[in-house]
Amino acid sequence: MDEFGLIAKYLKPLAAGAPGAFGLEDDAAAITVPPGNELILTKDAIVAGVHFLASDSLDLVAKKLIRVNVSDLAAKGARPIGYLLACCWPRATREADIELFAQGLAEDQALYGLSLLGGDTTVSDGPLVLSLTALGSVAVGKMVHRKGARMGDRVLVTGTLGDAGLGLRIARGETWGAGAADEAFLLRRYRLPEPRLAFGLAANELMRSAIDISDGLIADAGHIADASQAGLRLYAARLPLSSAAAGWIRLGGDIAFLATCGDDYEICFTAPAQSMAALEAQAARSGTRLTEIGEVVAGAGVQLIGPSGQELAVSRGGYSHF
Amino acid sequence: MDEFGLIAKYLKPLAAGAPGAFGLEDDAAAITVPPGNELILTKDAIVAGVHFLASDSLDLVAKKLIRVNVSDLAAKGARPIGYLLACCWPRATREADIELFAQGLAEDQALYGLSLLGGDTTVSDGPLVLSLTALGSVAVGKMVHRKGARMGDRVLVTGTLGDAGLGLRIARGETWGAGAADEAFLLRRYRLPEPRLAFGLAANELMRSAIDISDGLIADAGHIADASQAGLRLYAARLPLSSAAAGWIRLGGDIAFLATCGDDYEICFTAPAQSMAALEAQAARSGTRLTEIGEVVAGAGVQLIGPSGQELAVSRGGYSHF
Repeated sequence: MDEFGLIAKYLKPLAAGAPGAFGLEDDAAAITVPPGNELILTKDAIVAGVHFLASDSLDLVAKKLIRVNVSDLAAKGARPIGYLLACCWPRATREADIELFAQGLAEDQALYGLSLLGGDTTVSDGPLVLSLTALGSVAVGKMVHRKGARMGDRVLVTGTLGDAGLGLRIARGETWGAGAADEAFLLRRYRLPEPRLAFGLAANELMRSAIDISDGLIADAGHIADASQAGLRLYAARLPLSSAAAGWIRLGGDIAFLATCGDDYEICFTAPAQSMAALEAQAARSGTRLTEIGEVVAGAGVQLIGPSGQELAVSRGGYSHF
Repeated sequence: MDEFGLIAKYLKPLAAGAPGAFGLEDDAAAITVPPGNELILTKDAIVAGVHFLASDSLDLVAKKLIRVNVSDLAAKGARPIGYLLACCWPRATREADIELFAQGLAEDQALYGLSLLGGDTTVSDGPLVLSLTALGSVAVGKMVHRKGARMGDRVLVTGTLGDAGLGLRIARGETWGAGAADEAFLLRRYRLPEPRLAFGLAANELMRSAIDISDGLIADAGHIADASQAGLRLYAARLPLSSAAAGWIRLGGDIAFLATCGDDYEICFTAPAQSMAALEAQAARSGTRLTEIGEVVAGAGVQLIGPSGQELAVSRGGYSHF
């Protein structure tokens, strides 16, 4: 089957929900943004061997690709609309691979309310490279920025931290005596992040600054600090851990790893103290664990405070590709 | 220099013209589309060794990346707004490479009226993979589609055909005794396509169906035929050739190659006979060569008619990556 046949068979059905995709039978898509709204755009690429393992199942890779982008929209308080997709497949790709990939896309499109709008398919001698541009909408001026944290704001985080980093260690063959259930949980957290979309949409007006955690809490909280020209003081003892991650800590694991390992796709944000009750109500409504982990202070950068009040030495972390 | 430093130094200046890019210091861009307009989106990826040569100068690669996408907007009658860019760099990339690449982007942004809105930078062990999502705007409902050709419409094409295909043969070391000036011209047509933006914008209301020619005239005219459920009859003797390509034909070259080799980035479109005078005026105003090459007929697909009225056997051509 040639490129056009593959697109018609596996990708065209993914565009059925978007009239402006013209059934992927034109050179461009057309989008009208409802009056009073603006379009929010984000683009994340993932590469085999860097962001996922070449052995990962392609339906999960497709879902991770959608989810890392939906996570950006969620942290900005934006509602997903659609996406454009560029795939650069290795030459040895088989039709069954593309079928599995499209199946993952289809399931997550339905879950997050997106449609495929267009894109491009190429082949190379290199690893699988996937690039997705996600479109969302938000009321004009209501996008939540990294900038905006104010002195005295509470710092909060959704979900639990560090699970994906531990999951990657398991995927790479490391073991530390975690039970099978914990191992499966951690692996799943690595392979299938859960963007906090329902919470991000509900909390749009309550967050003063926000970012989704892809490069580790310390690095991404650092982006809020930099953009807001403020400091963030975080307390190690308050960082929300899954029971699997807490078990790893009990066996001698270092909390600093969990705060820097990345791939969490949780939302880190700041909000004034008077919004805490409303935030907790929204968290409960959307079934989202929400934890206050620190506060915005004078200064710059991120401090991680240990159990006895001392500042822990933590490299800022964050993944730099070069 | 790390990834963040490189982005700040070389990419951030490219976002200066777009307030909604937030200086590339947020996770998403925000775009407001003027009332009465809709957003047009297209995404083309180019890969070293497939769409350009790994030895090509990176400023030209950057320009080609922008131009292949602007060409899509031009054929849809849309005015460029901005773009998101994902780069997957080979591990051996040096800072000077990225500087040269950014310089090419900067020059073409200014030429076509685009700003960088966001994107992603990664590194892999594979070839350079570049993916660009271009945004444009058009009055609501005025995007020109592949669909829309009507029986009796004239078929027209901008510029000249086949130059880029010949340029690629020269880049790969082939020679046929073209002079140095012709070789330089053909190489340039391969490396630096000229999207027909001014003409596409001016002719928006005059084109009934249109496509930009990336996969060769026959393949792309075939997309118009398929989408419009009509046939396109094209005349080999009318295909516009540069003097360099005409020289190649005189030495025994085959017109079918020029009609199928791709990378032209000219606009092929259809229009009713009564629009010809207005189209010629717009072509003159924008300095665009415009040639009538055939007509829309009953039936399906594309026929290429030879000098004595016989149908030439031409494989549909078009590049399939798989």
